Amino acid sequence: MNKAIFDLTAPDSRDGYKLLTGLVVPRPIGWIGTVRNDGSYNLAPFSFFNVVSSTPPVVIFSAGLHSDRPKDSSTFAEEAGEFTVNIVSFDLAPAMNLTSGTFGVREDEFAVAGLTPVIGTMVNAPMVQESPANLECRVLDAMSLGDRGQARMVIGEVLAIHVREDALDGTRVDPSVIDAVGRLSGSSYTTTRDRFDLERPV
Amino acid sequence: MNKAIFDLTAPDSRDGYKLLTGLVVPRPIGWIGTVRNDGSYNLAPFSFFNVVSSTPPVVIFSAGLHSDRPKDSSTFAEEAGEFTVNIVSFDLAPAMNLTSGTFGVREDEFAVAGLTPVIGTMVNAPMVQESPANLECRVLDAMSLGDRGQARMVIGEVLAIHVREDALDGTRVDPSVIDAVGRLSGSSYTTTRDRFDLERPV
Repeated sequence: MNKAIFDLTAPDSRDGYKLLTGLVVPRPIGWIGTVRNDGSYNLAPFSFFNVVSSTPPVVIFSAGLHSDRPKDSSTFAEEAGEFTVNIVSFDLAPAMNLTSGTFGVREDEFAVAGLTPVIGTMVNAPMVQESPANLECRVLDAMSLGDRGQARMVIGEVLAIHVREDALDGTRVDPSVIDAVGRLSGSSYTTTRDRFDLERPV
Repeated sequence: MNKAIFDLTAPDSRDGYKLLTGLVVPRPIGWIGTVRNDGSYNLAPFSFFNVVSSTPPVVIFSAGLHSDRPKDSSTFAEEAGEFTVNIVSFDLAPAMNLTSGTFGVREDEFAVAGLTPVIGTMVNAPMVQESPANLECRVLDAMSLGDRGQARMVIGEVLAIHVREDALDGTRVDPSVIDAVGRLSGSSYTTTRDRFDLERPV
């Protein structure tokens, strides 16, 4: 099968967005909760998000200018020094999608989407009570990507994790209870219901 | 539903790995191709991997010490200043899993897994010919995570993208042709076949 080759180094190349969001899949969704200077809450989903270390526990999320949404979440996370990550189960996907819209600076996405904010035990950023799991995070570092700062990557240490008790066997997590969804490109998502196992080679 | 709370700040906490790999799902798989100093090839899968910016096009992958595998891929990528990312379709999952094993420093994972290495058009790192898509990347930066350097995160600019022609409509990617798999915890994976759509709010 022949492959098409796209050169992304051309200064005017705009091919990256559709190709990368279509090929680097499925992406986990970090539903990021932050608190603004005035004490109000912000909540928005990011799929440029992942774990990058488990010991120490570290996650990253990156907010770009390419979407309609301004980089509120990275700004508020950096200003307050903290954020939460809320896991999106299949039944919360419509509410998550609502919070990806463009809101005024003072609008509360929790109210818009009918969600219950709960303050963390270690941070003042809001967690989504309805999520099956929540991570409380402290900002370790942040860096700009691109010579015009087109994206901002926030690096956070995970201080505490909340998980629905019925999803746990010790620290082992039952994927069918979490029922997480992943991001594909465009308006497309995938469930994690079509699973298979591969035994690690010795 | 009650939630259990895990404090990861305890110095002896080992809860992070199982919880984070079980909760931050589905993770995309970056099958990372690198070339060693002696010219031989290395190939290994990482799920602490994602896009972090589309304009400019940037990806990250992170190699930890928690697995049995030493951080070959990050070392070789940094030394050569380049790497490839190869997309793992469902039919390549067994071969990808084979390359996650522990190999000697000079062993060629391409040969072990019956894969065909192809040199990039912009980098000398090997791409997996059998993958439905490949990214050629240049190392922009790298950073250690943890006070003992427990993980190494490599940040790469995507210079070129190769995609099977039958998966493309312009730069729009057909997820059913790519048929990517995502990582869950333990020995578990998910397909991207159980898809759904959510129209973005205006």
